Amino acid sequence: MNGSPETPDTHGYAKGIARRAAIVAVATEFFGRVGYRGATMLQIAAACGISRAGLLHHFPTKESLLEAVLTDRDRANRVRLPADHDGPDDGLVALRKLVEVVQLNSTVPAIINLYSVLSAEAGDPAHPAHDHFVRRYVASRADIQGSLEHARRHGHLAEGVDPATTAIELIALMDGLQVQWLLAPDVVDMAGVLRRRIELALTVPLDRG
Amino acid sequence: MNGSPETPDTHGYAKGIARRAAIVAVATEFFGRVGYRGATMLQIAAACGISRAGLLHHFPTKESLLEAVLTDRDRANRVRLPADHDGPDDGLVALRKLVEVVQLNSTVPAIINLYSVLSAEAGDPAHPAHDHFVRRYVASRADIQGSLEHARRHGHLAEGVDPATTAIELIALMDGLQVQWLLAPDVVDMAGVLRRRIELALTVPLDRG
Repeated sequence: MNGSPETPDTHGYAKGIARRAAIVAVATEFFGRVGYRGATMLQIAAACGISRAGLLHHFPTKESLLEAVLTDRDRANRVRLPADHDGPDDGLVALRKLVEVVQLNSTVPAIINLYSVLSAEAGDPAHPAHDHFVRRYVASRADIQGSLEHARRHGHLAEGVDPATTAIELIALMDGLQVQWLLAPDVVDMAGVLRRRIELALTVPLDRG
Repeated sequence: MNGSPETPDTHGYAKGIARRAAIVAVATEFFGRVGYRGATMLQIAAACGISRAGLLHHFPTKESLLEAVLTDRDRANRVRLPADHDGPDDGLVALRKLVEVVQLNSTVPAIINLYSVLSAEAGDPAHPAHDHFVRRYVASRADIQGSLEHARRHGHLAEGVDPATTAIELIALMDGLQVQWLLAPDVVDMAGVLRRRIELALTVPLDRG
């Protein structure tokens, strides 16, 4: 736009973006509360204050709405090295952010529940979110492996720690902690367990980053 | 029975037990293939070669059948110290058995999928398997903590390893590995990752046990 006055078209476009974001927010809340299978497009449309046809204009199927909810959530949760990762502690910072995301997630149990159920259901190749989760885990492993390799280059990784295997392990730990925490929130300290596991792989304190 | 001849009553009882076990086996396979929600009592009855009424005689509700499937599976998968755990390596043996159970589970993806989905769904207190999973995790944590404490008493646990927290971590790791393995079976070596994590907590090789 380069500062040019807003045309009716760009105004409509911006409105469309805002409407889409509002629908995704409502759907996230809805899926978290009554489950993906339990929620209907009609209920979600009503909660957004629009007609079913209006909702279908933005998301023609419930699957496409699910995909948008997941992509939105992944974007918010994704932790990776900054593009210009030339600071010696950038790997540590990215690893510490993982702990912060887990800490933040412990304030939204319904979303955690949704995510746990969907990632488990998606193990079935016929599930509408299967490909999404396959791609998501490939990206997560690459992100965390990258952070660990960065830490290694700066002497922050303990001897014998393999970045690829440790990335798989940390992701599995985060996923499993969510399931267990939902069943025993007073016993399971998700962020604390993850933090100690990461520190076990380091030669320096995590908080140094 | 004390070797007394079989009466018609005990014969009927034994037949009932066998029939019940056959139903649970069929239901396990069914839930694993089409999901708990996707399976109907009518389909399960047909697959067992009995009427719906015959099935309801043994399991009045789908929830009660689910409970039996889960209890059966937990019994097969439960790993704990032998009752007379006075061998110095009994803790190590129990920890090694965890790895063996995970190895065995990697031959039954449909069951793993079922278990992952149900344990995640059960995070919702309104889910019919919620109480089952709450109890199951309490028992699992106690079992593994017991094995780790046994290892500690015999000098097999590394310094600074807390048995209670490590039990939570190992269970979370096993659960999360299942989800990730279903999505990337060629990348995720469930048993290998678990084995290395356990060995990190020990002062002796796991295979010594």
